[in-house]
Amino acid sequence: MKKQSVDLNSDMGEGFGPWRIGDGVDEAIMPLISSANIATGFHAGDPNIMARTVQLARESGVGIGAHPGFRDLVGFGRRNIAEAPQALVNDILYQLGALREFARLHGLRLQHVKPHGALYMHAARDEAFSRLLVETLQQIDPNLLLFCMESSATYRIAREIGQPVVREFYADRDYDRSGSIVFTRRVGRLDAGQVAGKVLRACIEGKVRTLDGDDIDIDFDSICIHSDTPGALELVQTTREHLVREGIRITGPLAPTTRF
Amino acid sequence: MKKQSVDLNSDMGEGFGPWRIGDGVDEAIMPLISSANIATGFHAGDPNIMARTVQLARESGVGIGAHPGFRDLVGFGRRNIAEAPQALVNDILYQLGALREFARLHGLRLQHVKPHGALYMHAARDEAFSRLLVETLQQIDPNLLLFCMESSATYRIAREIGQPVVREFYADRDYDRSGSIVFTRRVGRLDAGQVAGKVLRACIEGKVRTLDGDDIDIDFDSICIHSDTPGALELVQTTREHLVREGIRITGPLAPTTRF
Amino acid sequence: MKKQSVDLNSDMGEGFGPWRIGDGVDEAIMPLISSANIATGFHAGDPNIMARTVQLARESGVGIGAHPGFRDLVGFGRRNIAEAPQALVNDILYQLGALREFARLHGLRLQHVKPHGALYMHAARDEAFSRLLVETLQQIDPNLLLFCMESSATYRIAREIGQPVVREFYADRDYDRSGSIVFTRRVGRLDAGQVAGKVLRACIEGKVRTLDGDDIDIDFDSICIHSDTPGALELVQTTREHLVREGIRITGPLAPTTRF
Amino acid sequence: MKKQSVDLNSDMGEGFGPWRIGDGVDEAIMPLISSANIATGFHAGDPNIMARTVQLARESGVGIGAHPGFRDLVGFGRRNIAEAPQALVNDILYQLGALREFARLHGLRLQHVKPHGALYMHAARDEAFSRLLVETLQQIDPNLLLFCMESSATYRIAREIGQPVVREFYADRDYDRSGSIVFTRRVGRLDAGQVAGKVLRACIEGKVRTLDGDDIDIDFDSICIHSDTPGALELVQTTREHLVREGIRITGPLAPTTRF
Repeated sequence: MKKQSVDLNSDMGEGFGPWRIGDGVDEAIMPLISSANIATGFHAGDPNIMARTVQLARESGVGIGAHPGFRDLVGFGRRNIAEAPQALVNDILYQLGALREFARLHGLRLQHVKPHGALYMHAARDEAFSRLLVETLQQIDPNLLLFCMESSATYRIAREIGQPVVREFYADRDYDRSGSIVFTRRVGRLDAGQVAGKVLRACIEGKVRTLDGDDIDIDFDSICIHSDTPGALELVQTTREHLVREGIRITGPLAPTTRF
Repeated sequence: MKKQSVDLNSDMGEGFGPWRIGDGVDEAIMPLISSANIATGFHAGDPNIMARTVQLARESGVGIGAHPGFRDLVGFGRRNIAEAPQALVNDILYQLGALREFARLHGLRLQHVKPHGALYMHAARDEAFSRLLVETLQQIDPNLLLFCMESSATYRIAREIGQPVVREFYADRDYDRSGSIVFTRRVGRLDAGQVAGKVLRACIEGKVRTLDGDDIDIDFDSICIHSDTPGALELVQTTREHLVREGIRITGPLAPTTRF
Repeated sequence: MKKQSVDLNSDMGEGFGPWRIGDGVDEAIMPLISSANIATGFHAGDPNIMARTVQLARESGVGIGAHPGFRDLVGFGRRNIAEAPQALVNDILYQLGALREFARLHGLRLQHVKPHGALYMHAARDEAFSRLLVETLQQIDPNLLLFCMESSATYRIAREIGQPVVREFYADRDYDRSGSIVFTRRVGRLDAGQVAGKVLRACIEGKVRTLDGDDIDIDFDSICIHSDTPGALELVQTTREHLVREGIRITGPLAPTTRF
Repeated sequence: MKKQSVDLNSDMGEGFGPWRIGDGVDEAIMPLISSANIATGFHAGDPNIMARTVQLARESGVGIGAHPGFRDLVGFGRRNIAEAPQALVNDILYQLGALREFARLHGLRLQHVKPHGALYMHAARDEAFSRLLVETLQQIDPNLLLFCMESSATYRIAREIGQPVVREFYADRDYDRSGSIVFTRRVGRLDAGQVAGKVLRACIEGKVRTLDGDDIDIDFDSICIHSDTPGALELVQTTREHLVREGIRITGPLAPTTRF
């Protein structure tokens, strides 16, 4: 069934000091999205960039979320680090709180949390970690939206326990048969028209083609386009245009709260 | 005029992963103090240790404060780093928010903030940095207590702007004529009786002897004993015993709020 | 067949700035060992400590080796990080070269290299990584001794390619049936007499009891006692005394070069 | 007196993991210069990038030098950190050795060392630090070229003690009356024609205009153009063209050794 509206999220603030990843186009992308996943310092992001990015999000009326990663700057949080669930949850709380302080400074509330890279994939697969994460979120902020894939342990456990979830569709990643994305450490330049077409089809038909060439059903509440994918701005612009042309509104995931 | 009561603060949670500084006696010191300055990750402290330290403070009914430092693990935050006020304030917000999240998890509220080491001394001397810090604290949390020396720019500006302050007396540091402590990167073993005597005299007579051998007037609301000073536990125990014997109660700085 | 002599190695210089792990007894242990594995900055160690530790080794006539680890200070190099062989070999070269410079400053040559913690275990299991490491060592320093377990891929490949190896016996770790040690992130206090007895038996009978209670054959060129095991100094002292009493000399692994 | 030839140096390898600073044009710049200052991991650079950059330099026949900085990734080594001379010299040795290992792997020898950013400026001003650095270089490698400004303590002390020095001219920085550059943390886009003109005049007339509008005499052996200055490639290309057109050869600083 064709969607009436959808959230559009992107990772924002993924710099560190003067360092940049991707095209450095946060300011251009921010007004085009509805949810910003803000890097919180472990894989990317620093206090100055976080402050600026929260302000940028406020100016565009974009919902802000914490985007915590493994403590791994050199690996940009895309390398798995063997660690116990409790330590990882503490890492997430630390980063989430750091961002919440900048939100507080700007009179905003935190909309969501979305683990980054290898930590997101680890949560998707690791039941114990996902469970402890969800239980802890219940304790500190039972309304905080948790972004994840529908095919993940994270999703299943969040639904079971009652933490509100936002299921993502990855515009710039490949899918396997299980409905999971194929995790890669670097992504090359993609064709904007193809990406937008894939998104539209997912929004209208609820289908996506896997790497094996099969179609699978997919449902989701938010489209993710990574800002460090080369040519990210064009991907966001083109996707947005296609959605608008089809009459699908781009709007934050908070609106349809009755869903939860 | 002899004090009826006084706060006793100590730096807690100054580990990093399996690393330790000092004697590793947090658990023994915690029940003896009334305010804990909890390391927030930049000069010391990590999410696991912060979680445990907040819990420890809660169990002892000790007020918790953020103890943010320069981003300088190898220097333990005791080396000055030339940086602009705004960047330093953002560093502090980041760390403060991180700790606040663990407080939230344990149902506690943040009592105070006390910059660590070289950052504390930098604030004491640098008017622009202290002003921006105080203005920002006013914005995010006008009731958050700011620990500082009476002789500092920090104190003067906090009083001017109206942020509640707690003036410290340093039991384990030397004073110069200006009423400032003489900053050192490492402190040797001190005689517990002498330290306790110095504290008692300050509490009863309001005087401290400087490095030059002169007596100066000193007023304060809280006594600081560093947990990484060798023999810290004995210093805290002996000082506490002396205070109790003199009928001076050790109590958190929140009580006399009318002061502000 | 009873050994006439054996190397005794320990990890040295595992501090970071003012931070310490273990009992901080490097100065006492150094004169008792014949090979020092010096931490090279990624999991522990900093330039000041490396300079001091190399000097300490020189004063005691102890052979020096690089002890490179994963870039993981908070995890002390004891957490596995998913990374490609080439990147890990580059990490090792970087650390090895850093130590070599301090050796050069003191007119010493590098005796050996021994990966630390999770990196050591990863090499033991991962053929591709061990092969690239050994090939690279061949290129930069074909006489550099590589410390490893006899049961490891590292040992097999080093023998195949011709890099000189030193097989280790772990006095303070448990063995499984395969002759590998059971990797643990933290080790508790051990009984010095038992440890020394286990070492003596291994030196005299060539046997060690596994966690399952079986005896397995074990051969080795060097005994390892970790300096961060609680009570490390006593373990080293007692083991050394037992060896000396049995007439087994403690001597660097370079002597019996004909072995290679 | 017009120069016959001059060295042209640029900072290379200033990435970290997937992070970049500047335009990421190392591969295009490398063949145009004669000396590469390779970042060694503390302010920028990682083992993978160092390995690749050394290989790149070898392919272009460019002399390689270590470019050590303060341990300050977030500040890109452009913030001064208060630290004792011995600790800073140890930091330099560590980084220098790390690079030397990659040179060894490629059969190259280290040509020079040039401290980065705030560490370079600190050495220029701080006699005790420069002296200890030069004395230590004498001990480990008396032929290693030390890059510095003629107006610096570093230059004076290196000449006094006998370490070979290469005096730099900064094409993309402003000069003050003392012949020192005006240190800035970020530089905007510069006009390539103006930069090249400034270089040519310095090479032909031995003069440079200061920020105050005065001309001062300047002598040097090497021209520095920073690769992180926006538009760096064009600056290098244009400067090179101007030099070649004037018949000034670009050649490594090793040739005129009789100078030392």
